[in-house]
Amino acid sequence: MSCDFLALAQPGVQKLSPYVPGKPVEELARELGLDPADIVKLASNENPLGPSPLAIQAIQSALPELTRYPDGNGFTLKQALAERFDVSPAMITLGNGSNDILELITRAFVGPQHEVVFSEHAFAVYPIVTQAVGARAVVVPARNWGHDLEAMAEAITPATRLVFIANPNNPTGTWIGRGELEAFLERVPEEVIVVLDEAYTEYVEDSDMPNGLDYLSGRPNLLVSRTFSKAYGLAALRVGYAMSNPAIADAMNRVRQPFNVNSLALAAAVATLGDVNYLAESRLTNRQGMLQLEEGLQLMGLSWILSRGNFVAVDLGREAAPVFQALLREGVIVRPVANYGMPNHLRVTIGLKRENQRFLEALTKVLASD
Amino acid sequence: MSCDFLALAQPGVQKLSPYVPGKPVEELARELGLDPADIVKLASNENPLGPSPLAIQAIQSALPELTRYPDGNGFTLKQALAERFDVSPAMITLGNGSNDILELITRAFVGPQHEVVFSEHAFAVYPIVTQAVGARAVVVPARNWGHDLEAMAEAITPATRLVFIANPNNPTGTWIGRGELEAFLERVPEEVIVVLDEAYTEYVEDSDMPNGLDYLSGRPNLLVSRTFSKAYGLAALRVGYAMSNPAIADAMNRVRQPFNVNSLALAAAVATLGDVNYLAESRLTNRQGMLQLEEGLQLMGLSWILSRGNFVAVDLGREAAPVFQALLREGVIVRPVANYGMPNHLRVTIGLKRENQRFLEALTKVLASD
Repeated sequence: MSCDFLALAQPGVQKLSPYVPGKPVEELARELGLDPADIVKLASNENPLGPSPLAIQAIQSALPELTRYPDGNGFTLKQALAERFDVSPAMITLGNGSNDILELITRAFVGPQHEVVFSEHAFAVYPIVTQAVGARAVVVPARNWGHDLEAMAEAITPATRLVFIANPNNPTGTWIGRGELEAFLERVPEEVIVVLDEAYTEYVEDSDMPNGLDYLSGRPNLLVSRTFSKAYGLAALRVGYAMSNPAIADAMNRVRQPFNVNSLALAAAVATLGDVNYLAESRLTNRQGMLQLEEGLQLMGLSWILSRGNFVAVDLGREAAPVFQALLREGVIVRPVANYGMPNHLRVTIGLKRENQRFLEALTKVLASD
Repeated sequence: MSCDFLALAQPGVQKLSPYVPGKPVEELARELGLDPADIVKLASNENPLGPSPLAIQAIQSALPELTRYPDGNGFTLKQALAERFDVSPAMITLGNGSNDILELITRAFVGPQHEVVFSEHAFAVYPIVTQAVGARAVVVPARNWGHDLEAMAEAITPATRLVFIANPNNPTGTWIGRGELEAFLERVPEEVIVVLDEAYTEYVEDSDMPNGLDYLSGRPNLLVSRTFSKAYGLAALRVGYAMSNPAIADAMNRVRQPFNVNSLALAAAVATLGDVNYLAESRLTNRQGMLQLEEGLQLMGLSWILSRGNFVAVDLGREAAPVFQALLREGVIVRPVANYGMPNHLRVTIGLKRENQRFLEALTKVLASD
């Protein structure tokens, strides 16, 4: 009975370090003996508004059917997305969060003989899904914390099967302009799949930033990944989606678990997609909160990476881990990003006005007490 | 732009046929112009009672937190399962339905060089997850529609990494007795992982049937898979779980998506697990419905496979597909199982008394009109 099961695991899996999620409020409250209601969580880029009332209503209506399996084809949600974005339902793949999308595209197309290209400081799930299939990760050094698309294009070899691009990127908030993206797409060979991860795109109000959907018709090797977890406020329920050419969607559908998206998620996503006021309020809250944080950080003499997401990576100019711990003791949870090669930064999600204020006050106090 | 993306997909993926789910009520209603309320769905082995009121209550309480990510470690549900089954939380892996469990164990341990052994007429997800990793499926002929464990033990070779056993099995309802299972486990080499899929075990009231958990302590290569989709009535929400030695759980956790189980699923599963009345009523309804169906089928002169699940595979003695279609036109959805190598059978889920009655009447009418 001495069998070493980890040694029997797939080579890619043995070397895999699981994703480290942000600390749940309940866990911190348990650890520090705090009242959960006093804790401010700005750690997971969640929408601070609470869910759309239309989502709640849709869930209520779906509760009597909890014993039934979800619609495995996601008929209604695909229809709603197809209408909203003017694409065919055959181009849409639904995921259990966009994490599922990133995994499905990798598992469908990438094997141990392949390379996957992504940027330094890019979203942590890219190296995980690459490692899980035993492929080689080609990590291209960042330029000013953001993607260096020229260097990424140069990193493509005949072994490259997939490129991940996050626009805006998490955890840096950096973004890619239209011209830069177009020049990159021109250079990518057509058998290399480009995954354009637009998880934060709904927060973008900058007219120079590209909308990935504009490039789908001309580029069969492009996949645009999006999520209901951020601006649409449904992180708890897990709904992501991809839009790509139908042949890529077909391959992803073959590896997709037949009921990967649950019924309440499907219902809530359709409802939230139709709630234009909610999206507008999410954007407004984010814009105002971003200004509030930037002003506060400036007053403290701190610098940060300019961001187009719902978060800011603050440069503390020193090791951030002890500051993270001290903030926890103040009941404020943010995200350390040392695992992203950013040991001096903390990523702060933009919250409600009073939450941002709590963070700024706690940070002031913590830095002063040094 | 003529790139053939399916040709670029992983070899296992190219040959994959996705799982075909049961027809949702809304889809049938659309197709046949029927009122959804008049349709009886006995197609997906769902609990006919509707959800536990405690599950509904738990979901209501969790709704304000929909914008927050789930607890990726499933702390509360693992605690509840650990207490209920007297295992350590480190032995538990949570899945987005037990489909996720079956996939995680395969992806963690099985590669293209391996063989996976399972029975003819066994659950359709076993060949799918095997094919998806490019491994070789070794399908062992059934004996009286059920698993031939002796032949399965003989089918194990040095290339075998995994064996799937369903007890009871879907779609046949066949089961394995304690002595037979123990003799099989004795013969399996310790580096071969045995997945004992007990999705329907809560319906079992037969004292000779084994409880997989009884064998965990002595067997580090055993994994017991269970679900909240059947007797616990939460198919819509997607919660499955595995219990195994912690080293296997560790490997599965590395490939698991960090937020694979959604928050409402976690809350509802904890609540339902605590609702002993619901489970008792589910069992009672199933026992009575099984008798009702057996009596009805006997009166019609039909035979069926004896079942320990919440469904019965009825032998029509002729091609079942036209009967399935005719039943649809009567507003009764059951499951054809030709894709399981059972072209003459229809699988009928045990429903409420009036649903079972509707099925029996519709079947009588359909067979008489031939």
